[in-house]
Amino acid sequence: MVSQKSNKISNGSVQVIPLGGVGEIGKNMFVVRYGDEMIVIDSGLKFPDEEMLGVDIVIPDMTYLFENRDKIKGVFLTHGHEDHIGALPYLLKEIDVPVYGTKLTIGLAERKLKDHPVRKSVSLKQITPGKQMKLGAFKLEFFSTNHSIADSIGIAIHTPEGIIVHSGDFKFDHTPVTGEITDYHKLAELGKKGVLCLMSDSTNAEQPGYTNSDRVVGETIDEIFREAPKRIILATFASNIYRIQQVINAAKKYGKKIGVVGRSMVNVIEAASELGYLRDVENVVIDDIEKVNQLPLEKTVLLTTGSQGEPMSALTRIATDDHKKVQIMPQDTVVIAATPIPGNEKLVSRSIDNLFKRGAHVIYKSVAGIHVSGHGSQEELKLMLNLVKPKHLIPIHGEYRMQVNHKNLAENLGLPSKNIFLAENGEVMEFKNGRGRVNGKVPAGKVLVDGLGVGDVGNIVLRDRRLLSQDGILIVVISVDKQNKELVAGPDIVSRGFVYVRESEELLDEAREHVVKALNKMSKSKMNEWQAIKSSVKDVLGQYLWEKTRRRPMILPIIMEV
Amino acid sequence: MVSQKSNKISNGSVQVIPLGGVGEIGKNMFVVRYGDEMIVIDSGLKFPDEEMLGVDIVIPDMTYLFENRDKIKGVFLTHGHEDHIGALPYLLKEIDVPVYGTKLTIGLAERKLKDHPVRKSVSLKQITPGKQMKLGAFKLEFFSTNHSIADSIGIAIHTPEGIIVHSGDFKFDHTPVTGEITDYHKLAELGKKGVLCLMSDSTNAEQPGYTNSDRVVGETIDEIFREAPKRIILATFASNIYRIQQVINAAKKYGKKIGVVGRSMVNVIEAASELGYLRDVENVVIDDIEKVNQLPLEKTVLLTTGSQGEPMSALTRIATDDHKKVQIMPQDTVVIAATPIPGNEKLVSRSIDNLFKRGAHVIYKSVAGIHVSGHGSQEELKLMLNLVKPKHLIPIHGEYRMQVNHKNLAENLGLPSKNIFLAENGEVMEFKNGRGRVNGKVPAGKVLVDGLGVGDVGNIVLRDRRLLSQDGILIVVISVDKQNKELVAGPDIVSRGFVYVRESEELLDEAREHVVKALNKMSKSKMNEWQAIKSSVKDVLGQYLWEKTRRRPMILPIIMEV
Repeated sequence: MVSQKSNKISNGSVQVIPLGGVGEIGKNMFVVRYGDEMIVIDSGLKFPDEEMLGVDIVIPDMTYLFENRDKIKGVFLTHGHEDHIGALPYLLKEIDVPVYGTKLTIGLAERKLKDHPVRKSVSLKQITPGKQMKLGAFKLEFFSTNHSIADSIGIAIHTPEGIIVHSGDFKFDHTPVTGEITDYHKLAELGKKGVLCLMSDSTNAEQPGYTNSDRVVGETIDEIFREAPKRIILATFASNIYRIQQVINAAKKYGKKIGVVGRSMVNVIEAASELGYLRDVENVVIDDIEKVNQLPLEKTVLLTTGSQGEPMSALTRIATDDHKKVQIMPQDTVVIAATPIPGNEKLVSRSIDNLFKRGAHVIYKSVAGIHVSGHGSQEELKLMLNLVKPKHLIPIHGEYRMQVNHKNLAENLGLPSKNIFLAENGEVMEFKNGRGRVNGKVPAGKVLVDGLGVGDVGNIVLRDRRLLSQDGILIVVISVDKQNKELVAGPDIVSRGFVYVRESEELLDEAREHVVKALNKMSKSKMNEWQAIKSSVKDVLGQYLWEKTRRRPMILPIIMEV
Repeated sequence: MVSQKSNKISNGSVQVIPLGGVGEIGKNMFVVRYGDEMIVIDSGLKFPDEEMLGVDIVIPDMTYLFENRDKIKGVFLTHGHEDHIGALPYLLKEIDVPVYGTKLTIGLAERKLKDHPVRKSVSLKQITPGKQMKLGAFKLEFFSTNHSIADSIGIAIHTPEGIIVHSGDFKFDHTPVTGEITDYHKLAELGKKGVLCLMSDSTNAEQPGYTNSDRVVGETIDEIFREAPKRIILATFASNIYRIQQVINAAKKYGKKIGVVGRSMVNVIEAASELGYLRDVENVVIDDIEKVNQLPLEKTVLLTTGSQGEPMSALTRIATDDHKKVQIMPQDTVVIAATPIPGNEKLVSRSIDNLFKRGAHVIYKSVAGIHVSGHGSQEELKLMLNLVKPKHLIPIHGEYRMQVNHKNLAENLGLPSKNIFLAENGEVMEFKNGRGRVNGKVPAGKVLVDGLGVGDVGNIVLRDRRLLSQDGILIVVISVDKQNKELVAGPDIVSRGFVYVRESEELLDEAREHVVKALNKMSKSKMNEWQAIKSSVKDVLGQYLWEKTRRRPMILPIIMEV
């Protein structure tokens, strides 16, 4: 993974280095470097893959930043989603550097840092879309984008070698909920000036056409409110303030009060109201679901978390009748206003099934218009390319096949293949005199966070967890006399996760006998060699158990000297 | 789960009892009972959910069959997919009963039973669509259906109380690969006679419109063959003989030889060729991939398994450059002619990414027409209902929300709600004098198969595996003197899957000290009470480790008497 620890930079060149966010969706982190000055764009986390057993979150390997801490002038956040701000506490724990973002983004980052206090004072600075600032050799301009969270921006970084544009997460929505559209004019202006390199969102590079406007969802929500006979329970991403606003609008129109269920939904609504990102919140009861429960059902709406079927979330608990304050009632309409993130399909389906079983009418993904993506589709990616007219393109924010699709789109618009970088994390793209090339690699990769441990769960621990999860463990304990190396107690066999012990006594007794036989066979001199004893126990037991059960539990011999 | 072990049947009534296959997709098994005579339709397996760690397959709880073994007249298989025949070995191990199926179905069942020999002679009997047979009180008619495997049938069971129709897995394909279409005429004839109850496939009850014809895929495959510059590697379900036939047709047309990669693909092609279900197989080289590899690349096609991204499958190995005989070459076209089964999306995406990384051109789900479902959509379900005109409907072969959708469709066609049963596994639907009702429950549920163990992995074992998979295990061994109950050795601490031991020596040393302290605190009399010692060790360690790591490994104290 590491090919060059201390990246050298050629004189008078600018470098773009993804530390996370290419070849993947998640843990976004990009470095732009000129001479001895760097800025960092985003500091995101990623949720673990299934095979990362027991891992809580994944963050980028920040070795390169830690080794160049004195060069870093600032961290810029494009918006407040976890995959863009979630690794901030881990970055700020090591490096004291100012963090820049728009009002809502900074508001969300502040709340995150309260949960993960890193030091007494953290310098969070607010920036405004449409404005610009100077920072060392860089001049930065921030432009508004449409995305599934308010206050999203892209960034144009003016360097002595040319302009680098980071698109942020974007779509082109002509009728967004707030009315503020992606800043076409700034993009056009940049394109006219000439852009050296565009880093652009590839999430929906596989999707033909245009992504629907948020207005479509507003209309669907309105229709659902009009037709629902009784209470409405609507689940969506807590961070999707637009969706929440649309629910507030419909509730106002149809005279319903909104109760909020689920901690992260409460947090976001509090933050967004405080910062002025939600209108007409007087109908929203944040703190007291009982108050809403007392109203006639047809006068109420519940906004909840759990649109991804997360096991501990509000909607999942409601669906399994395991929520303290909310039970499904006859004629409830439940709306899941989100599509499942890949990997969550089964969990979401299970919630839907459970809600149906309790008698709710469930409106979910197969119903059109209840969710739209926050990322632009192919025609929008082309529009971005044609507005910005970059000399080079780095498709970012996408798994490899999405990057490839994005590359194909750009080639079809006439961008030469050699000017498009299908970058890997850690790869250094260097631009000088208007020409780009890959120039080496810096350390990059994933750091697994499990509880308080950052990076202490690696391949060996994960391999053991995987083994344990498949067929469990069998522990064989024997006591050996210190002096004359004789067996004085055991072998005792204890198993967990292997077989149901009460029904497998015979199997375990026989297993024990096999170990006894194996130990008896060993010469006295060998009883001194613990490794030999352990190997022998493992071999004999492993073979016996495979024959009898076709399972391979982890076998762990423990020898005690007494 | 069990409310009534020995199901009683009212005089002169017929019962329909799902033992698997409702509220789920998989492990299909239905019982039709009249008096003291029963027939069983299908005997399928299901693949385990993610949380069933280490489990290989899931089969229906067949207690009800085992307790009524003398009443069972025959087992009828509707087609050769695993979710319809996969549990056959476990059924036949316990009960000696004749098994009926069409030619290909029986051929596949035979091969399955070779891998799981249950007794010397098993009675497998071939039936022919369009024909009928008498069995005890039942007269059975078999009718052809279109599905993603050849020789699929539905069954009409004439009982003294009326006709029960089981749709099998079906769609209405006007232009199927073989030319043989679902038997509209038999369905119409049954509808005219009057059908007491229809059990009908609900898989695609959420999909509006019609399912595309297999011909669409044939055209797409033809186009891919025409345009591919070099070799084609095509992955599909091994059991999808139609897709394989379409590849054979295109290979013949464009003068290419076909190599077969992957054990299950080889097995199915051998079986299907032998039984006459594949034409023009002279271009298929089954046994020798080297022979195909020697030809010019543009003259070759490889048919492989792995369309679901299964970790050990041929395509996955090819994608990770881990296959002995096949490497991706420049300009290879890889076609994934299947959509991911829910839950497999991430694995499939990973394969696609890896194939792109090795330079292949990959054609996958986002490309239209490379896969069509084998199950009918809403309009086809309506057509089935309007042809058969059943008095009662049991939506089968679907998760609960699909059953609900199917019910809604039927209600829209005028079937009264009370005549539609959203059955659970084990529920007894009883029909008498033309009227149906739920009459109790028989044992039903899932039996987990892990290696050779059938049903010996239950909730306790799974809970342990889940705990082990999350934070690993910490084993604390101490030796206590038999006579005077004094600690003579230990505590020794061994951990697996918890932390990376080399970097956590301090943590484990401190943990050990905490245990020593706790043991010292115990009065000598208490050292006699093993449960007390174990609880104390668990409490002290659990608390210490949670504080230090925010993890909860399984803590397993073992005490040896020496």
